[in-house]
Parts: sequence; structure tokens; C-alpha cells
Amino acid sequence: MSTGPHPARYRGAPREQPSLENWQEPPHNRWTFAHLGEIVPSAVVSRRAPHPTGAVSRLNRLAPGLPDLEARLEQSYTDAFLVLRGDEVVAEFYRDGFAPHDRHLVMSVSKSLCGLVFGSVVDEERIDPAQRIVQYIPELAGSVYDGPVVQELLDMVIQVDYSEDYVDPASEVQTHDRAGGWRPRRAGDPADDYAFLASLRGDGTVGRFQYSSAHTDVLAWLIERVTGERYVTALSERLWSKLGADRDATITVDPTGFGFANGGVSCTARDLARVGRLVLDGGIGPGGRAVSQEWIDATFAGGDPAVMDDHFPGGFENGSYTRQWWCMGNERGNISAIGIHGQNLWLDPRTDSAIVKLSTWPEPDTDEWHRVHSRLLLDVCLELEAW
Amino acid sequence: MSTGPHPARYRGAPREQPSLENWQEPPHNRWTFAHLGEIVPSAVVSRRAPHPTGAVSRLNRLAPGLPDLEARLEQSYTDAFLVLRGDEVVAEFYRDGFAPHDRHLVMSVSKSLCGLVFGSVVDEERIDPAQRIVQYIPELAGSVYDGPVVQELLDMVIQVDYSEDYVDPASEVQTHDRAGGWRPRRAGDPADDYAFLASLRGDGTVGRFQYSSAHTDVLAWLIERVTGERYVTALSERLWSKLGADRDATITVDPTGFGFANGGVSCTARDLARVGRLVLDGGIGPGGRAVSQEWIDATFAGGDPAVMDDHFPGGFENGSYTRQWWCMGNERGNISAIGIHGQNLWLDPRTDSAIVKLSTWPEPDTDEWHRVHSRLLLDVCLELEAW
Repeated sequence: MSTGPHPARYRGAPREQPSLENWQEPPHNRWTFAHLGEIVPSAVVSRRAPHPTGAVSRLNRLAPGLPDLEARLEQSYTDAFLVLRGDEVVAEFYRDGFAPHDRHLVMSVSKSLCGLVFGSVVDEERIDPAQRIVQYIPELAGSVYDGPVVQELLDMVIQVDYSEDYVDPASEVQTHDRAGGWRPRRAGDPADDYAFLASLRGDGTVGRFQYSSAHTDVLAWLIERVTGERYVTALSERLWSKLGADRDATITVDPTGFGFANGGVSCTARDLARVGRLVLDGGIGPGGRAVSQEWIDATFAGGDPAVMDDHFPGGFENGSYTRQWWCMGNERGNISAIGIHGQNLWLDPRTDSAIVKLSTWPEPDTDEWHRVHSRLLLDVCLELEAW
Repeated sequence: MSTGPHPARYRGAPREQPSLENWQEPPHNRWTFAHLGEIVPSAVVSRRAPHPTGAVSRLNRLAPGLPDLEARLEQSYTDAFLVLRGDEVVAEFYRDGFAPHDRHLVMSVSKSLCGLVFGSVVDEERIDPAQRIVQYIPELAGSVYDGPVVQELLDMVIQVDYSEDYVDPASEVQTHDRAGGWRPRRAGDPADDYAFLASLRGDGTVGRFQYSSAHTDVLAWLIERVTGERYVTALSERLWSKLGADRDATITVDPTGFGFANGGVSCTARDLARVGRLVLDGGIGPGGRAVSQEWIDATFAGGDPAVMDDHFPGGFENGSYTRQWWCMGNERGNISAIGIHGQNLWLDPRTDSAIVKLSTWPEPDTDEWHRVHSRLLLDVCLELEAW
């Protein structure tokens, strides 16, 4: 178990951590020269020959029942769309300018990835979801997290003074962005994401669903605390290395190197579908078991619809949220990872299918946009079932 | 040909370019969601299972003549060392904590990569090295680059008020770092690397070698200007996609997305050896021709030793510099790409070998460190020749 506030980017080094100020100096350079993209924004220099211009559209197998699918994808700002049924990619679409091997920001789909990593830590009994959060992270004493138990984080039933209004500069989500490196810093901002999380307050009530990106980052902090590893490392070792992934994923990091677990992952559509495959397969991937069948079963079983607010995305009356996944509560048993601007990893157990949709809606999210996606995803499920 | 000061990160978009302020908003999100690492520092989430701890050392074929090789590698802060003879990796070493698939910052080895890309543009007659720089980039009027011709950039024989003292905060190389995103910005700094380059002054003389990182970035700017592509794209399409590379490279970018051509590339040791293979093969790689045999021949032929200062790294009396490569002027005909803190891509035509050494010296460079490397690299060549 780490003794510091969080795992250092590297071990055996001075307390001082690498930064934009010192990364060129010893001893930091032994680590930073292999991780410079964590310090200085960096572009990918592709090893692949240039991708031919024009969209990639392999939707013909869905076309009989969904002749307007491509138009619907284009109208909903789709960058990538993929249907993986069993082990077969039965449909795929990439807009002009976005290649199948390109990574795409998945926003809050990242939360569902964190949920799976967290499950692996629970499986190992390194953490007990029934225990209080501050038992593991004393630094959160006095914050909104001083009192609630870990399971309440997983299911997002902690009331917190945190506005998730993405376009309001005064909202906590924008302060969170600034602490996490997603927006230019302002005077008085918390030094890093950990400090931001410790600054959050609430009225002490639990039990009603309130979606908050902060909760996921506390889960990632818990993972770091009980494993002694960076969240970046845990995400690789406990999930990404199990997938048989084509490409590495990336995750944005705050100034201390803390991965932005709530929304910072980028990956290819195909690799995200592999996450869906692993979940549909009860937690096992080509690289081995990531998380227990029990954790997966509990995720599919869903949470308590009675604690939900009235903003379940896509308008599912019996929808619920548990373990960082949205559970539709419909008879198909669909669950989905969902991110703003139109990111979905939608699982359909009935047809053994994972559907990925990566988009760039012009708005973060609206009820209508979620309904457009829900209709499209359900239509695809029905078409798959009709085969 | 681009009409703006430099190629936009993307086309068909407003003049405003993506930034930390606006990247989450439309229309920027269509581009930024696929390139977030260029805006927000990001970590790699490896798709590979954890690398076993301990060094990787496959030096036995060199051991008969060089029994102390591993000790010499460790003493010179080696992270990765590789000898590619023909198409065969005959020796390889990775220190504990640095895996064969890890990318490593190559510092000014990046310059030599830029030289190859530049050659490809000359081959296509898009640019004439005998023409004046400002004929292509009028924005450089009034700067030190107003007067000299392109070949003088390639060979670094332009006197410029530019101190390459890496540890002096008042040096131009540190201002360059700040403009390129490598150090925290200060009030009054140039807005970006282009503005920094245009701010440079000199006494108007040419003909004597003066190593300056700025010159390479002007070459990259020229590549952008005459191709209409970002340097990042040119580096991929004209070089990296020709190598049969295992992994993408990365390059740090300034706030406008301009790749830091003088020193910002990170790649694996194996892929850097593939660059060496391509050069030894006269400009052709598995992905096709990158640059002409003529350009490669001119590089191996070397520049004019008479114009050199007395600081040729490693102490080669007849050493010279041309087309962004160091030419040893020895009877073996060695040339090398060299970066501070101990980066080398050393080519030995006599044994058809490329030797890569990626290191993290505690100092940027000293004459003694360069001599340590030269002795080691020459000893390896002699051992290869003795087989």
C-alpha cells in the first residue's frame, strides 16, 4: 500500500515528481524520456501509410432492415460505428477523415472502464465496497466523501455540491476540468485532481442517484491506494492487457500524472468493442480474466430504479445505474457505457453483441440526442435479432 | 501550397485553431476528440501484459571481443541499445524498467529524421536548396534567415544569436523550449515556435558551422510551406510509414500543433534502427522509397570539415555536418544522428550495421560523454568486422 497521498509516477526517486519545470534534469529524465507525452502535448506520427480519403462503410448486412442507417449515423455526427456479434464484426462505419485505427476520446465511457478495473480490485478483496471511503483515503476527511461507503460511489448515490453543467464556467465540472488539465488553470484552482476531490462538499445525504464525474476519480484514487499502482498502470494491467487490443489506449493525466478516470480515455472503436466482448463473456478476454463473473452479473442486474432522477439518458423508465454502467432495465437487458458528445458502448446479451458508437455531437448532451442514440441502438439490436 | 503562416491542424474549419480553451466545443471537437494528446498531456495505457522486471540483455554475440559491454552500457546510462546488421538484430540491451516496445525521446536525432524528410521534398523539386529561405517563407524577412539559402540551413552554417547552452535560463535554446512547449511559458515569450524563429537575429555571416536547433525547425516550416501538410503528417507519410515500423512514433507539438522537429521525436530502439536500415539501403524501406539514393550519397559524403568549429562530438578530426547528420570523416565512413543526454543512431556501412543507443546521461552533453560513446560505437564496429 502506498504511504503517500498517491502513487508516484516512478519509484526510487526523490519526493519531487517530474514536471514541465524539471523533466529534462536528472534523475527525472530516466522516467520522462520514456513518458514525455505525459508532460508535453504530443502528436502521433503514424507508422501506417496514409488512409485513403472517403468514409469506410460496411453496413450492408444491416441494410435490409435499416436502409437509412448510414444517413442516421451521419446525422448524429458519427465518427466510428461498429457492431461486434460474437467474435465477428458484422457492421462498421468510419466517417471521412477518421480511420479504423484512429483513437477517439470516449469521455464518460471511461467511467465504465474504471468500474471494471474496480471490480478486479474488489475480487481480490483488496477493498470492501461496504466500508467507508475515508477508511482507505484519510485525506478525504471533511469532504463530501467523509461518511459514505464505497458502494455508494460505485452507484453514484452521494449528494454532492457538484454541477455537471458542462457549459457553465462556474460549475464544479469546469473546476474539475481545470484541476485535471482539461482547461487552462485559473488562480486559486486546486493544484491537482486529488486536491479538487478533497475540496468537494455536500449536505451529507446519500441514497438518491446524482451523476458526478468526481465520484469516478475517487474510485480511481481508491484503486491507486489499495494497489500501490498508478491508475494508468492498473487500467493497463487489469483491463487493457486482457483484451487482445490492437492498439494501446491513452488517458489524459493531471499535473501529478493521475489519469482522468472519469473521462480521459481514448481508444479505437475496435478495441472498445473488445471491452464489450469481455463483459459479454463474463469478464474474460484473450489475455485472461479481468474481473469476476459475479461482478459482471451484478452489473447486468442493474441498480435500483427507484433512486434515479428523471434524467436517465434515452428515456428508459426502469433504467438504473450501478458499478459505473447505465442499465436500461428493458426486457433485452441492455447495459451501456455512455459519454457526452455521443459515445456509446452498448451491450445486447440477447444477440451476444457489442455496439460501439463514437461521435462528436455539437452539444455535450441533450435528452433528444440520447433518444436518437437509444432508438438507433435498439433498432440495430432488433435487426440483429431478425437475422 | 498553404497560404497561411503555417498549415492548420485541420482543414475546412474556422480560422481559429483548437486549443486548451476551446477543444471541447464544436466544430473543434471533430478533430480534437481524435487528437487529444496534442492538447492535453496523456499517458499510454499499454495493451501489453506487464513487462517482466529485470534488464533484457542479449549481448552474447558481441561478448567475445567486448566482455565489458554491458558494464559500459550501464555506466553510460543506457536505456536501450541495439545492433542491427543487415536485417538481423545481433545484439540488444534494455535496462530494468525500460521495455523493448517502449518509446524513448531521441532529442536531436529528430534533426536527422527531418533531414531525410527534407530530402524527399527536394527530390520532388518542391524546393531548391540553392534558393533563399525567405523566398519560401516571407514571414522570416528581417530575421537571421533573411539572406541565407536553404542549403546553409541544412548544413548549419548560418551565424545566429542563439546560445545552445541547455542549462542557462537566459539562453535562446531555453526560450525556444518555452515557445515549443518544453518549459513553462514566461511573460513576453513568443506565442509559438514560428514566432520564435522569426524573432532570431544574427550578424549576417554564413559559412562557418554553428549548431542551432532553430535551423531544423525552419526546415520543418519549409516542408510545411511547400507541401501544405503539417510537419507531423509529412514525417509520417514520407518516412515513418516507409519503415515497416512496429509502433507509431510521437512528436511533441507547440500550441499551434507544429511538431518540434529539432528534438521532439520519441520512438522505439527497434524502429530507430529501421531508420538506419533505410539509410543504409539508399533510402528505401519496406514501405517504399523515402528519399533518393542521391540524397543519401550526399549525406554519407559529408560536409566540409574546414568550416567546423572545434566541438565536433567525440573528437573526429575530419568530422563534418551535412543535411542534419554528423559525418565522422573516418575511414569507416561512419555517420550518426546524435542527441543530447546520449542518443545515437550510428551507421557503419562497412559492416552494413545500424547501432542505436538511447540513454539518459545526467548532463545534456560533455566532450567526455561524447568520447565515451564514440569509443563504444567504434569498438562495436570493430567487433562486428572481426566476425
